Amino acid sequence: MTIKALVFDAYGTLYDIQSVAAITEEEFPGYGEIITQIWRIKQLEYTWLRSLMRRYQDFSVITRDSLAYTLRCLGLKDDPAVFGRIMEKYLHLDLYPDAKATLVAMKDRKLAILSNGSTDMLNTLVRNSGLDRVLDATISIDSKRVFKPSPETYTLIESNLGIPRAEVLFVSSNPFDACGAKAFGLNVAWIERVTVQAMALACVKSDAVPPLTMFKAIRMQMDELGLEPDFRIKTLADLPELLKSMA
Amino acid sequence: MTIKALVFDAYGTLYDIQSVAAITEEEFPGYGEIITQIWRIKQLEYTWLRSLMRRYQDFSVITRDSLAYTLRCLGLKDDPAVFGRIMEKYLHLDLYPDAKATLVAMKDRKLAILSNGSTDMLNTLVRNSGLDRVLDATISIDSKRVFKPSPETYTLIESNLGIPRAEVLFVSSNPFDACGAKAFGLNVAWIERVTVQAMALACVKSDAVPPLTMFKAIRMQMDELGLEPDFRIKTLADLPELLKSMA
Repeated sequence: MTIKALVFDAYGTLYDIQSVAAITEEEFPGYGEIITQIWRIKQLEYTWLRSLMRRYQDFSVITRDSLAYTLRCLGLKDDPAVFGRIMEKYLHLDLYPDAKATLVAMKDRKLAILSNGSTDMLNTLVRNSGLDRVLDATISIDSKRVFKPSPETYTLIESNLGIPRAEVLFVSSNPFDACGAKAFGLNVAWIERVTVQAMALACVKSDAVPPLTMFKAIRMQMDELGLEPDFRIKTLADLPELLKSMA
Repeated sequence: MTIKALVFDAYGTLYDIQSVAAITEEEFPGYGEIITQIWRIKQLEYTWLRSLMRRYQDFSVITRDSLAYTLRCLGLKDDPAVFGRIMEKYLHLDLYPDAKATLVAMKDRKLAILSNGSTDMLNTLVRNSGLDRVLDATISIDSKRVFKPSPETYTLIESNLGIPRAEVLFVSSNPFDACGAKAFGLNVAWIERVTVQAMALACVKSDAVPPLTMFKAIRMQMDELGLEPDFRIKTLADLPELLKSMA
Protein backbone atom coordinates (compact mmCIF):
# COMPACT_ATOMS: atom_id res chain seq x y z
CA MET A 1 0.00 0.00 0.00
CA THR A 2 1.51 3.34 -1.09
CA ILE A 3 0.26 6.20 1.04
CA LYS A 4 0.94 9.54 -0.65
CA ALA A 5 -1.29 11.68 1.56
CA LEU A 6 -2.51 11.72 5.14
CA VAL A 7 -5.81 13.48 5.64
CA PHE A 8 -6.97 14.33 9.15
CA ASP A 9 -10.27 15.10 10.71
CA ALA A 10 -9.93 18.30 12.79
CA TYR A 11 -12.34 18.40 15.76
CA GLY A 12 -11.54 15.65 18.22
CA THR A 13 -8.69 14.27 16.09
CA LEU A 14 -6.01 16.98 15.80
CA TYR A 15 -7.80 19.46 18.09
CA ASP A 16 -9.04 18.63 21.57
CA ILE A 17 -12.63 19.89 21.65
CA GLN A 18 -12.71 19.05 25.35
CA SER A 19 -10.39 22.00 25.82
CA VAL A 20 -13.50 24.21 25.62
CA ALA A 21 -14.30 22.89 29.10
CA ALA A 22 -11.73 25.29 30.58
CA ILE A 23 -13.93 28.20 29.50
CA THR A 24 -17.34 26.61 30.15
CA GLU A 25 -16.21 25.64 33.68
CA GLU A 26 -15.02 29.21 34.31
CA GLU A 27 -18.38 30.60 33.17
CA PHE A 28 -20.59 27.89 34.72
CA PRO A 29 -18.77 26.29 37.67
CA GLY A 30 -19.69 22.62 38.07
CA TYR A 31 -21.14 22.41 34.57
CA GLY A 32 -18.00 22.80 32.46
CA GLU A 33 -17.64 19.20 31.36
CA ILE A 34 -21.30 18.32 30.97
CA ILE A 35 -21.81 21.37 28.75
CA THR A 36 -19.08 20.25 26.37
CA GLN A 37 -20.44 16.68 26.26
CA ILE A 38 -24.05 17.61 25.49
CA TRP A 39 -22.92 20.36 23.13
CA ARG A 40 -20.84 17.91 21.10
CA ILE A 41 -23.63 15.34 20.84
CA LYS A 42 -26.13 17.96 19.65
CA GLN A 43 -23.60 19.60 17.33
CA LEU A 44 -23.12 16.29 15.51
CA GLU A 45 -26.87 15.54 15.53
CA TYR A 46 -27.57 18.88 13.91
CA THR A 47 -25.02 18.25 11.14
CA TRP A 48 -26.80 14.98 10.32
CA LEU A 49 -30.33 16.32 10.64
CA ARG A 50 -29.67 19.42 8.54
CA SER A 51 -27.95 17.28 5.90
CA LEU A 52 -30.95 14.94 5.73
CA MET A 53 -33.51 17.77 5.72
CA ARG A 54 -31.45 19.58 3.05
CA ARG A 55 -31.36 22.66 5.24
CA TYR A 56 -27.62 23.21 5.31
CA GLN A 57 -26.18 25.90 7.53
CA ASP A 58 -22.45 26.13 8.04
CA PHE A 59 -20.70 24.66 11.07
CA SER A 60 -20.41 27.96 12.91
CA VAL A 61 -24.23 28.31 12.89
CA ILE A 62 -24.65 24.70 14.01
CA THR A 63 -22.07 25.15 16.75
CA ARG A 64 -23.94 28.21 18.05
CA ASP A 65 -27.35 26.57 17.86
CA SER A 66 -26.20 23.44 19.66
CA LEU A 67 -24.60 25.54 22.41
CA ALA A 68 -27.86 27.47 22.81
CA TYR A 69 -29.71 24.16 23.08
CA THR A 70 -27.26 22.88 25.69
CA LEU A 71 -27.53 25.93 27.94
CA ARG A 72 -31.34 25.86 27.70
CA CYS A 73 -31.38 22.16 28.48
CA LEU A 74 -29.29 22.69 31.63
CA GLY A 75 -31.35 25.69 32.71
CA LEU A 76 -28.31 27.99 32.36
CA LYS A 77 -28.65 31.63 31.36
CA ASP A 78 -27.57 32.38 27.84
CA ASP A 79 -25.80 35.74 28.32
CA PRO A 80 -24.44 37.12 25.01
CA ALA A 81 -20.99 37.98 26.45
CA VAL A 82 -20.59 34.53 28.03
CA PHE A 83 -21.86 32.90 24.85
CA GLY A 84 -19.31 34.87 22.84
CA ARG A 85 -16.40 33.86 25.09
CA ILE A 86 -17.30 30.17 24.82
CA MET A 87 -17.69 30.36 21.03
CA GLU A 88 -14.36 32.21 20.73
CA LYS A 89 -12.57 29.22 22.28
CA TYR A 90 -13.65 27.18 19.27
CA LEU A 91 -11.19 29.23 17.21
CA HIS A 92 -8.40 28.60 19.73
CA LEU A 93 -8.79 24.91 20.54
CA ASP A 94 -5.78 23.12 21.99
CA LEU A 95 -3.93 20.73 19.72
CA TYR A 96 -3.44 17.26 21.11
CA PRO A 97 0.08 17.30 22.63
CA ASP A 98 1.52 14.94 19.99
CA ALA A 99 -0.19 16.56 16.97
CA LYS A 100 2.39 19.04 15.72
CA ALA A 101 5.48 16.84 16.17
CA THR A 102 3.72 13.91 14.46
CA LEU A 103 2.75 16.02 11.46
CA VAL A 104 6.28 17.42 11.14
CA ALA A 105 7.72 13.88 11.27
CA MET A 106 5.57 12.89 8.25
CA LYS A 107 6.29 15.96 6.15
CA ASP A 108 7.51 13.79 3.24
CA ARG A 109 3.83 13.07 2.41
CA LYS A 110 1.01 15.42 1.58
CA LEU A 111 -0.76 16.46 4.77
CA ALA A 112 -4.26 17.88 4.88
CA ILE A 113 -7.37 18.43 6.99
CA LEU A 114 -10.87 17.46 5.84
CA SER A 115 -13.37 18.86 8.30
CA ASN A 116 -17.02 19.72 8.89
CA GLY A 117 -15.83 23.18 9.97
CA SER A 118 -16.63 26.16 7.79
CA THR A 119 -13.78 27.59 5.72
CA ASP A 120 -13.49 30.63 8.02
CA MET A 121 -13.53 28.67 11.28
CA LEU A 122 -10.96 26.20 9.99
CA ASN A 123 -8.56 28.72 8.53
CA THR A 124 -8.60 30.75 11.74
CA LEU A 125 -8.13 27.66 13.91
CA VAL A 126 -5.29 26.32 11.76
CA ARG A 127 -3.52 29.69 11.77
CA ASN A 128 -4.01 30.22 15.50
CA SER A 129 -2.45 26.84 16.24
CA GLY A 130 0.43 27.25 13.79
CA LEU A 131 -0.56 24.22 11.68
CA ASP A 132 -0.70 26.40 8.56
CA ARG A 133 3.07 25.96 8.32
CA VAL A 134 2.80 22.15 8.24
CA LEU A 135 -0.36 21.41 6.26
CA ASP A 136 -0.57 21.35 2.47
CA ALA A 137 -4.32 21.92 2.46
CA THR A 138 -7.21 22.68 4.81
CA ILE A 139 -10.39 21.41 3.19
CA SER A 140 -13.85 22.38 4.44
CA ILE A 141 -16.95 20.40 3.43
CA ASP A 142 -18.69 23.79 3.06
CA SER A 143 -18.77 23.72 -0.75
CA LYS A 144 -20.81 20.48 -0.72
CA ARG A 145 -23.48 21.80 1.68
CA VAL A 146 -23.75 18.45 3.44
CA PHE A 147 -21.75 17.10 6.35
CA LYS A 148 -19.80 13.93 7.01
CA PRO A 149 -20.43 11.03 6.63
CA SER A 150 -22.07 11.93 3.28
CA PRO A 151 -19.89 10.43 0.52
CA GLU A 152 -19.83 13.81 -1.28
CA THR A 153 -17.65 15.23 1.48
CA TYR A 154 -14.92 12.63 1.06
CA THR A 155 -14.70 13.27 -2.70
CA LEU A 156 -13.12 16.62 -1.79
CA ILE A 157 -9.85 14.89 -0.92
CA GLU A 158 -9.19 13.68 -4.44
CA SER A 159 -10.49 16.85 -6.08
CA ASN A 160 -8.29 19.06 -3.86
CA LEU A 161 -5.13 16.99 -3.58
CA GLY A 162 -5.24 15.14 -6.90
CA ILE A 163 -4.44 11.88 -5.12
CA PRO A 164 -6.73 8.83 -5.59
CA ARG A 165 -8.47 7.42 -2.52
CA ALA A 166 -6.42 4.20 -2.58
CA GLU A 167 -3.29 6.26 -1.84
CA VAL A 168 -4.79 8.25 1.00
CA LEU A 169 -4.77 7.37 4.69
CA PHE A 170 -7.66 9.09 6.45
CA VAL A 171 -7.23 9.59 10.18
CA SER A 172 -10.09 10.27 12.57
CA SER A 173 -10.97 9.63 16.20
CA ASN A 174 -14.69 10.01 15.46
CA PRO A 175 -16.22 6.56 14.87
CA PHE A 176 -18.92 7.86 12.50
CA ASP A 177 -16.25 9.63 10.44
CA ALA A 178 -14.00 6.57 10.31
CA CYS A 179 -17.03 4.55 9.13
CA GLY A 180 -18.04 7.16 6.55
CA ALA A 181 -14.52 7.32 5.12
CA LYS A 182 -14.34 3.52 5.02
CA ALA A 183 -17.75 3.28 3.29
CA PHE A 184 -16.42 5.74 0.72
CA GLY A 185 -13.33 3.61 0.06
CA LEU A 186 -10.50 5.42 1.83
CA ASN A 187 -7.84 3.67 3.90
CA VAL A 188 -8.76 4.51 7.47
CA ALA A 189 -6.90 4.72 10.76
CA TRP A 190 -9.20 5.18 13.74
CA ILE A 191 -7.76 6.69 16.91
CA GLU A 192 -9.25 4.96 19.93
CA ARG A 193 -8.30 7.42 22.65
CA VAL A 194 -10.52 5.95 25.38
CA THR A 195 -10.89 2.20 25.50
CA VAL A 196 -14.28 0.57 25.90
CA GLN A 197 -12.85 -1.50 28.72
CA ALA A 198 -11.88 1.63 30.65
CA MET A 199 -15.33 3.13 30.15
CA ALA A 200 -17.26 -0.01 30.98
CA LEU A 201 -15.13 -0.49 34.10
CA ALA A 202 -15.89 3.03 35.26
CA CYS A 203 -19.60 2.24 34.95
CA VAL A 204 -19.51 -1.17 36.56
CA LYS A 205 -17.40 0.01 39.49
CA SER A 206 -19.77 2.81 40.34
CA ASP A 207 -23.18 2.39 41.92
CA ALA A 208 -24.65 5.22 39.93
CA VAL A 209 -23.53 5.33 36.33
CA PRO A 210 -21.27 8.40 36.02
CA PRO A 211 -22.89 10.68 33.45
CA LEU A 212 -19.72 12.04 31.85
CA THR A 213 -18.33 8.59 31.25
CA MET A 214 -21.58 7.61 29.62
CA PHE A 215 -21.68 10.64 27.38
CA LYS A 216 -18.14 9.89 26.22
CA ALA A 217 -18.99 6.23 25.77
CA ILE A 218 -21.84 6.87 23.37
CA ARG A 219 -19.62 8.75 20.95
CA MET A 220 -16.13 7.36 21.43
CA GLN A 221 -16.32 3.63 20.86
CA MET A 222 -16.49 2.05 17.42
CA ASP A 223 -20.01 2.06 16.05
CA GLU A 224 -22.06 -0.94 14.95
CA LEU A 225 -22.52 0.13 11.34
CA GLY A 226 -21.12 -2.93 9.61
CA LEU A 227 -17.84 -1.16 8.83
CA GLU A 228 -14.36 -1.63 10.27
CA PRO A 229 -11.43 0.81 10.08
CA ASP A 230 -8.29 -0.68 8.53
CA PHE A 231 -6.14 0.32 11.48
CA ARG A 232 -6.75 1.08 15.14
CA ILE A 233 -4.22 3.29 16.87
CA LYS A 234 -4.13 4.81 20.35
CA THR A 235 -2.69 8.22 19.57
CA LEU A 236 -1.48 10.39 16.68
CA ALA A 237 2.14 9.58 17.64
CA ASP A 238 1.51 5.97 16.52
CA LEU A 239 1.20 7.07 12.88
CA PRO A 240 4.86 7.20 11.72
CA GLU A 241 5.35 3.63 12.97
CA LEU A 242 2.13 2.52 11.23
CA LEU A 243 3.31 4.04 7.95
CA LYS A 244 6.63 2.22 8.23
CA SER A 245 4.83 -1.10 8.77
CA MET A 246 2.76 -0.48 5.63
CA ALA A 247 5.75 0.28 3.38
CA MET B 1 -57.50 24.85 8.08
CA THR B 2 -59.25 21.62 7.04
CA ILE B 3 -57.59 18.55 8.52
CA LYS B 4 -58.69 15.40 6.72
CA ALA B 5 -56.03 13.07 8.11
CA LEU B 6 -54.01 12.67 11.29
CA VAL B 7 -50.70 10.92 10.83
CA PHE B 8 -48.78 9.73 13.88
CA ASP B 9 -45.21 8.83 14.54
CA ALA B 10 -45.09 5.44 16.31
CA TYR B 11 -42.07 5.05 18.60
CA GLY B 12 -42.23 7.55 21.45
CA THR B 13 -45.48 9.09 20.18
CA LEU B 14 -48.20 6.39 20.26
CA TYR B 15 -45.95 3.72 21.80
CA ASP B 16 -43.92 4.21 24.96
CA ILE B 17 -40.43 3.00 24.07
CA GLN B 18 -39.46 3.44 27.72
CA SER B 19 -41.66 0.44 28.42
CA VAL B 20 -38.72 -1.71 27.28
CA ALA B 21 -37.11 -0.74 30.59
CA ALA B 22 -39.29 -3.31 32.39
CA ILE B 23 -37.44 -6.06 30.53
CA THR B 24 -33.96 -4.50 30.53
CA GLU B 25 -34.23 -3.92 34.30
CA GLU B 26 -35.28 -7.55 34.82
CA GLU B 27 -32.31 -8.77 32.80
CA PHE B 28 -29.76 -6.23 34.05
CA PRO B 29 -30.81 -4.95 37.50
CA GLY B 30 -29.78 -1.32 38.05
CA TYR B 31 -29.17 -0.75 34.34
CA GLY B 32 -32.73 -0.94 33.01
CA GLU B 33 -33.29 2.75 32.39
CA ILE B 34 -29.81 3.71 31.24
CA ILE B 35 -29.86 0.90 28.66
CA THR B 36 -33.07 2.23 27.10
CA GLN B 37 -31.72 5.80 27.04
CA ILE B 38 -28.41 4.99 25.36
CA TRP B 39 -30.09 2.47 23.07
CA ARG B 40 -32.55 5.10 21.82
CA ILE B 41 -29.86 7.72 21.18
CA LYS B 42 -27.74 5.27 19.19
CA GLN B 43 -30.76 3.83 17.37
CA LEU B 44 -31.60 7.31 16.06
CA GLU B 45 -27.95 8.09 15.27
CA TYR B 46 -27.69 4.93 13.20
CA THR B 47 -30.82 5.82 11.19
CA TRP B 48 -29.25 9.17 10.31
CA LEU B 49 -25.74 7.84 9.66
CA ARG B 50 -26.90 4.97 7.47
CA SER B 51 -29.17 7.34 5.52
CA LEU B 52 -26.25 9.71 4.90
CA MET B 53 -23.80 6.94 4.02
CA ARG B 54 -26.44 5.40 1.74
CA ARG B 55 -26.07 2.09 3.56
CA TYR B 56 -29.70 1.51 4.45
CA GLN B 57 -30.62 -1.41 6.67
CA ASP B 58 -34.12 -1.74 8.01
CA PHE B 59 -35.10 -0.59 11.49
CA SER B 60 -34.99 -4.08 13.00
CA VAL B 61 -31.29 -4.37 12.05
CA ILE B 62 -30.58 -0.90 13.41
CA THR B 63 -32.45 -1.66 16.61
CA ARG B 64 -30.38 -4.83 17.12
CA ASP B 65 -27.08 -3.11 16.30
CA SER B 66 -27.74 -0.19 18.63
CA LEU B 67 -28.68 -2.57 21.46
CA ALA B 68 -25.44 -4.50 20.88
CA TYR B 69 -23.54 -1.21 21.05
CA THR B 70 -25.30 -0.23 24.28
CA LEU B 71 -24.54 -3.49 26.07
CA ARG B 72 -20.90 -3.36 24.96
CA CYS B 73 -20.64 0.24 26.08
CA LEU B 74 -21.94 -0.63 29.56
CA GLY B 75 -19.73 -3.69 29.83
CA LEU B 76 -22.78 -5.98 29.96
CA LYS B 77 -22.73 -9.49 28.53
CA ASP B 78 -24.60 -9.90 25.30
CA ASP B 79 -26.27 -13.30 25.85
CA PRO B 80 -28.38 -14.38 22.83
CA ALA B 81 -31.40 -15.40 24.95
CA VAL B 82 -31.38 -12.15 26.92
CA PHE B 83 -30.87 -10.18 23.73
CA GLY B 84 -33.83 -11.96 22.17
CA ARG B 85 -36.13 -11.24 25.12
CA ILE B 86 -35.29 -7.52 25.01
CA MET B 87 -35.79 -7.32 21.26
CA GLU B 88 -39.11 -9.16 21.55
CA LYS B 89 -40.46 -6.37 23.77
CA TYR B 90 -40.08 -4.01 20.81
CA LEU B 91 -42.98 -5.89 19.19
CA HIS B 92 -45.10 -5.54 22.35
CA LEU B 93 -44.48 -1.94 23.39
CA ASP B 94 -47.05 -0.34 25.69
CA LEU B 95 -49.36 2.24 24.16
CA TYR B 96 -49.47 5.56 25.97
CA PRO B 97 -52.52 5.34 28.26
CA ASP B 98 -54.51 7.93 26.26
CA ALA B 99 -53.58 6.64 22.80
CA LYS B 100 -56.40 4.27 21.94
CA ALA B 101 -59.29 6.37 23.30
CA THR B 102 -57.95 9.48 21.54
CA LEU B 103 -57.72 7.69 18.20
CA VAL B 104 -61.24 6.30 18.57
CA ALA B 105 -62.55 9.80 19.37
CA MET B 106 -61.18 11.11 16.06
CA LYS B 107 -62.38 8.25 13.89
CA ASP B 108 -64.24 10.69 11.57
CA ARG B 109 -60.86 11.55 9.99
CA LYS B 110 -58.33 9.31 8.29
CA LEU B 111 -55.86 7.97 10.87
CA ALA B 112 -52.44 6.58 10.02
CA ILE B 113 -48.95 5.86 11.28
CA LEU B 114 -45.80 6.97 9.44
CA SER B 115 -42.81 5.37 11.11
CA ASN B 116 -39.13 4.50 10.74
CA GLY B 117 -40.07 0.95 11.69
CA SER B 118 -39.83 -1.80 9.11
CA THR B 119 -43.09 -3.06 7.63
CA ASP B 120 -42.88 -6.32 9.61
CA MET B 121 -42.07 -4.69 12.96
CA LEU B 122 -44.85 -2.15 12.56
CA ASN B 123 -47.55 -4.54 11.45
CA THR B 124 -46.79 -6.87 14.35
CA LEU B 125 -46.71 -4.01 16.86
CA VAL B 126 -49.95 -2.49 15.58
CA ARG B 127 -51.71 -5.87 15.65
CA ASN B 128 -50.36 -6.77 19.11
CA SER B 129 -51.67 -3.50 20.52
CA GLY B 130 -55.06 -3.69 18.77
CA LEU B 131 -54.54 -0.45 16.81
CA ASP B 132 -55.15 -2.31 13.54
CA ARG B 133 -58.86 -1.89 14.27
CA VAL B 134 -58.58 1.92 14.47
CA LEU B 135 -55.95 2.88 11.89
CA ASP B 136 -56.65 3.34 8.19
CA ALA B 137 -53.00 2.80 7.26
CA THR B 138 -49.66 1.84 8.77
CA ILE B 139 -46.92 3.30 6.59
CA SER B 140 -43.27 2.25 6.90
CA ILE B 141 -40.48 4.37 5.40
CA ASP B 142 -38.91 1.07 4.29
CA SER B 143 -39.72 1.50 0.60
CA LYS B 144 -37.68 4.75 0.48
CA ARG B 145 -34.55 3.23 2.03
CA VAL B 146 -33.82 6.38 4.01
CA PHE B 147 -35.09 7.40 7.43
CA LYS B 148 -36.79 10.47 8.85
CA PRO B 149 -36.23 13.40 8.63
CA SER B 150 -35.43 12.87 4.91
CA PRO B 151 -38.17 14.61 2.91
CA GLU B 152 -38.68 11.43 0.84
CA THR B 153 -40.18 9.70 3.87
CA TYR B 154 -42.91 12.32 4.36
CA THR B 155 -44.00 12.06 0.71
CA LEU B 156 -45.37 8.61 1.63
CA ILE B 157 -48.32 10.22 3.40
CA GLU B 158 -49.76 11.75 0.27
CA SER B 159 -48.92 8.78 -1.93
CA ASN B 160 -50.57 6.35 0.50
CA LEU B 161 -53.57 8.33 1.72
CA GLY B 162 -54.19 10.51 -1.33
CA ILE B 163 -54.52 13.58 0.89
CA PRO B 164 -52.38 16.67 0.19
CA ARG B 165 -49.96 17.78 2.91
CA ALA B 166 -51.91 20.97 3.64
CA GLU B 167 -54.80 18.82 4.87
CA VAL B 168 -52.70 16.56 7.10
CA LEU B 169 -51.85 17.07 10.76
CA PHE B 170 -48.66 15.22 11.60
CA VAL B 171 -48.22 14.33 15.27
CA SER B 172 -44.88 13.45 16.86
CA SER B 173 -43.18 13.73 20.22
CA ASN B 174 -39.75 13.46 18.60
CA PRO B 175 -38.37 16.97 18.02
CA PHE B 176 -36.30 15.95 14.99
CA ASP B 177 -39.38 14.36 13.43
CA ALA B 178 -41.58 17.40 14.13
CA CYS B 179 -38.88 19.56 12.47
CA GLY B 180 -38.52 17.24 9.50
CA ALA B 181 -42.28 17.18 8.91
CA LYS B 182 -42.43 20.97 9.23
CA ALA B 183 -39.52 21.41 6.79
CA PHE B 184 -41.44 19.20 4.36
CA GLY B 185 -44.56 21.36 4.67
CA LEU B 186 -46.94 19.36 6.84
CA ASN B 187 -49.02 20.86 9.66
CA VAL B 188 -47.28 19.67 12.80
CA ALA B 189 -48.34 19.12 16.40
CA TRP B 190 -45.43 18.38 18.71
CA ILE B 191 -46.10 16.55 21.95
CA GLU B 192 -43.92 17.97 24.70
CA ARG B 193 -44.25 15.24 27.31
CA VAL B 194 -41.45 16.44 29.59
CA THR B 195 -41.03 20.16 29.98
CA VAL B 196 -37.62 21.77 29.74
CA GLN B 197 -38.35 23.52 33.02
CA ALA B 198 -38.85 20.19 34.78
CA MET B 199 -35.65 18.80 33.36
CA ALA B 200 -33.55 21.86 34.04
CA LEU B 201 -34.87 22.00 37.58
CA ALA B 202 -33.92 18.38 38.16
CA CYS B 203 -30.37 19.26 37.09
CA VAL B 204 -30.05 22.46 39.03
CA LYS B 205 -31.44 20.94 42.23
CA SER B 206 -28.97 18.12 42.20
CA ASP B 207 -25.26 18.42 43.01
CA ALA B 208 -24.31 15.87 40.45
CA VAL B 209 -26.22 16.11 37.19
CA PRO B 210 -28.53 13.06 37.10
CA PRO B 211 -27.58 11.05 34.02
CA LEU B 212 -31.04 9.82 33.09
CA THR B 213 -32.51 13.29 33.17
CA MET B 214 -29.71 14.50 30.94
CA PHE B 215 -30.17 11.71 28.45
CA LYS B 216 -33.85 12.50 28.23
CA ALA B 217 -33.10 16.21 27.96
CA ILE B 218 -30.90 15.85 24.91
CA ARG B 219 -33.64 14.22 22.90
CA MET B 220 -36.92 15.49 24.30
CA GLN B 221 -36.82 19.26 24.09
CA MET B 222 -37.45 21.19 20.89
CA ASP B 223 -34.33 21.37 18.73
CA GLU B 224 -32.56 24.49 17.49
CA LEU B 225 -32.97 23.79 13.80
CA GLY B 226 -34.68 27.01 12.76
CA LEU B 227 -38.08 25.28 12.59
CA GLU B 228 -41.14 25.55 14.82
CA PRO B 229 -44.05 23.12 15.08
CA ASP B 230 -47.44 24.73 14.47
CA PHE B 231 -48.87 23.40 17.72
CA ARG B 232 -47.42 22.29 21.04
CA ILE B 233 -49.50 19.89 23.09
CA LYS B 234 -48.79 18.01 26.31
CA THR B 235 -50.42 14.69 25.55
CA LEU B 236 -52.32 12.81 22.84
CA ALA B 237 -55.59 13.49 24.67
CA ASP B 238 -55.22 17.21 23.79
CA LEU B 239 -55.77 16.47 20.11
CA PRO B 240 -59.60 16.43 19.82
CA GLU B 241 -59.72 19.86 21.51
CA LEU B 242 -57.00 21.16 19.18
CA LEU B 243 -58.93 19.96 16.13
CA LYS B 244 -62.06 21.71 17.38
CA SER B 245 -60.14 24.97 17.80
CA MET B 246 -58.86 24.70 14.21
CA ALA B 247 -62.29 24.11 12.67
